Amino acid sequence: MQKRITTAHGGGGEEMRELISGLFFKYFSNPYLEKLNDFAKVDISSRRIALSTDSFVVEPWSFPGGNIGDLAVCGTVNDISMSGATPLYLTCGFILPEGMPLEDLEEIVSAMARRASEAGVLIVTGDTKVVGRGAGPFINTAGVGAVPDGIDIGGEMAKVGDEVIVTGAVGSHGIAVLSKREGLSFSTEVLSDCAPLNKMVAALIENGIIPKVLRDPTRGGVAGALNEISVQSGVEIEIEDEAIPIEQGVRSACDMLGYDPLHIANEGCMLVVVSQKDAQRALELIQSCKYGEGAARIGRIAEGAPRVTAKTLLGTKRLVDPPSGELLPRIC
Amino acid sequence: MQKRITTAHGGGGEEMRELISGLFFKYFSNPYLEKLNDFAKVDISSRRIALSTDSFVVEPWSFPGGNIGDLAVCGTVNDISMSGATPLYLTCGFILPEGMPLEDLEEIVSAMARRASEAGVLIVTGDTKVVGRGAGPFINTAGVGAVPDGIDIGGEMAKVGDEVIVTGAVGSHGIAVLSKREGLSFSTEVLSDCAPLNKMVAALIENGIIPKVLRDPTRGGVAGALNEISVQSGVEIEIEDEAIPIEQGVRSACDMLGYDPLHIANEGCMLVVVSQKDAQRALELIQSCKYGEGAARIGRIAEGAPRVTAKTLLGTKRLVDPPSGELLPRIC
Repeated sequence: MQKRITTAHGGGGEEMRELISGLFFKYFSNPYLEKLNDFAKVDISSRRIALSTDSFVVEPWSFPGGNIGDLAVCGTVNDISMSGATPLYLTCGFILPEGMPLEDLEEIVSAMARRASEAGVLIVTGDTKVVGRGAGPFINTAGVGAVPDGIDIGGEMAKVGDEVIVTGAVGSHGIAVLSKREGLSFSTEVLSDCAPLNKMVAALIENGIIPKVLRDPTRGGVAGALNEISVQSGVEIEIEDEAIPIEQGVRSACDMLGYDPLHIANEGCMLVVVSQKDAQRALELIQSCKYGEGAARIGRIAEGAPRVTAKTLLGTKRLVDPPSGELLPRIC
Repeated sequence: MQKRITTAHGGGGEEMRELISGLFFKYFSNPYLEKLNDFAKVDISSRRIALSTDSFVVEPWSFPGGNIGDLAVCGTVNDISMSGATPLYLTCGFILPEGMPLEDLEEIVSAMARRASEAGVLIVTGDTKVVGRGAGPFINTAGVGAVPDGIDIGGEMAKVGDEVIVTGAVGSHGIAVLSKREGLSFSTEVLSDCAPLNKMVAALIENGIIPKVLRDPTRGGVAGALNEISVQSGVEIEIEDEAIPIEQGVRSACDMLGYDPLHIANEGCMLVVVSQKDAQRALELIQSCKYGEGAARIGRIAEGAPRVTAKTLLGTKRLVDPPSGELLPRIC
């Protein structure tokens, strides 16, 4: 008979201990976790740390190109990386529905372990709760990274003249989840771009390119992220529609459904704002990285009130609004 | 009309930004949070940090003596404190049901702010997701604390001859939640003991008492926590039934419902294992703290196979098993 999650797996008793040692230790094995305390004590070499957290509620939990476990690790690794910090340790909280097949949980946990290994981070402490049928699985991860000396990257640091790079084609995560959820099929299958970006950030910093801003355009998409940066830095951002890399499958899906690809969530690309003098070298470094082949220079920081504009294919200028409401709920 | 949570509040757009600045900044105001990045950069003076995480799914979210917000802050503050570390920073992830009244969320957020202030911690970064009606609210917190030099506290450190102290009456949190959930009323109203324990831990350490083990007996209760310690340290733990502080309301409720108070969850007391020579002084220090008046010496570490035994009122010895299954689901 298929083994399933019961309320006892979240109850603090024998069944929970069996789940922890039988499943979590099998995949997340490391000396911190195995101490079995409700905390992990870890060493950190820098006096400045970056902290981040995200809860993942994507529905369905599995989609073309990944599952909620891939997202839970990559999402927090990426948020930490956007500060310029080196992600080191993750915490992990599972909220599982009663009746969930244990093999589904194993699929999720094994994806988390693969991504943690790829990103070079350790999952050092965790928590499991079980709730009623129909809710979840939900996963929260929080992360800690070491901020290198002299690094001050943040949404408020963009200056007039800086350039904007996107590290890969946009919109594929949102369309991949949507296609699975709605049972849609497009001419070309769209896979989520879900990936850890920390090695790409490290490649820039190790080569002496310190970005002003790094931002992964998840919920709200590229339009949401650029608008946030424009407000935080108090600048206008001008992009060029033509320069934005979009896969054919994403473009067709957006045309069919009436979506703007700039509003669609991504999980494996980022926006990089760099000084003009660094832009070409930054692009080349990014393109040499595993997840950066499709990178492109898409615009620049201009003088003007905080807003985002795009030069259209017709040569006119349009306002790029952040999405309002929730276009695609439960996308991450 | 009563304002309610909509899917747009979790969508990464304007509505989410309004929720963040209108509600979260109002209560959690601090310079880290207000940078509006997906990460917080914070300074840490120690080279060793403690990390912990917990997701809270208590049902109902409000109960006599507190709500899920009190639990979310105290629970993680306490887990960090159980390492001997000074809790400093929390991250916070909300998973909210569509349709939740905003005033309910404000009640939760204000409780979190009060508890964070009491414990002296800052909520520095967060995340909000909205899911379908009927699931949640769920809150995850993760915490970072600074581990003082020379402190090595953990479940594996108990030695034969050490004594066991409990810092307050046991079982009240579980019974308080149960009474609200089931609409039960007992002769005496039972209030949750939910409280931050970090100042009590600091009082011990600052006065030169370094405990061997600290553990807050949440899910699984005192019996669960003692059994964990006995396994981690490879020792027998002997307690005395008569010595365990239990409020009359909890005792009556447990008698009526057939529960063992040692199996009931707590959220504001802890087990302290100290060397015999420190035990009396530790007890006095704990009793001088805000949440430690009801503290008592309840047993000792004995030679023997890993197990927990209790001397009964009749002078016989019984085995104290950890709870199996989930006695009281959704208790934290």
